[in-house]
Amino acid sequence: MDVSFAVNRERPGFAGGKYPADCSSRIVLNHITSRWGVLVLLALERGTLRWGELRREVEGISEKMLASTLKTFEADGILHREAQPTVPPRVDYTLTERGREVAMRLMPLMDWIADNADDIVGER
Amino acid sequence: MDVSFAVNRERPGFAGGKYPADCSSRIVLNHITSRWGVLVLLALERGTLRWGELRREVEGISEKMLASTLKTFEADGILHREAQPTVPPRVDYTLTERGREVAMRLMPLMDWIADNADDIVGER
Repeated sequence: MDVSFAVNRERPGFAGGKYPADCSSRIVLNHITSRWGVLVLLALERGTLRWGELRREVEGISEKMLASTLKTFEADGILHREAQPTVPPRVDYTLTERGREVAMRLMPLMDWIADNADDIVGER
Repeated sequence: MDVSFAVNRERPGFAGGKYPADCSSRIVLNHITSRWGVLVLLALERGTLRWGELRREVEGISEKMLASTLKTFEADGILHREAQPTVPPRVDYTLTERGREVAMRLMPLMDWIADNADDIVGER
């Protein structure tokens, strides 16, 4: 792990590296850019959400994929899961500071996509 | 298509929208954040590459996935494919202006991942 990190560091930033298949950067990139990762991050960027709210916000995500995406991000320290002691029980999902850092860095890409997606898809 | 775009525009940027499952933004997001999309974009961000060079740069990508990723990005106007009239034949892949715009917007995220991935994976 240390070796591949050192390779990345030969030039500024991740982009200068060779993205070795087993490096930690590749693992985290795959988590963030997983099929639903970006959409879950952006939904939570606007604030704490419950399970049902996430299901509605991230249109099309299955229960299984939502559970899997949330579990991965919780293990990565990107979001915090808190079971509220209410009746009926309620679970809140909130981005951690680390999660907010990631979400913030996704915004320029998301804005660009919103501005250009119609042209791109229209030209195909 | 126009409707979902209008929804996104109610608040600044894509992040304010509800990411409707059938909107063009979702399609383009899925192309860029496909399993190998980001790594191919970042490899080409450093300049024109040939097929074999891409295979080496994006460690672990299969011939099939490289072909599929390049074809999607070519149809999206993100990269340009040029067959050189040489013996043996050679094909060059280069980011278009649109592709460079995307790659540029991925850099802050990639730098963050390079700086944080070891901590994230180490804590798991």
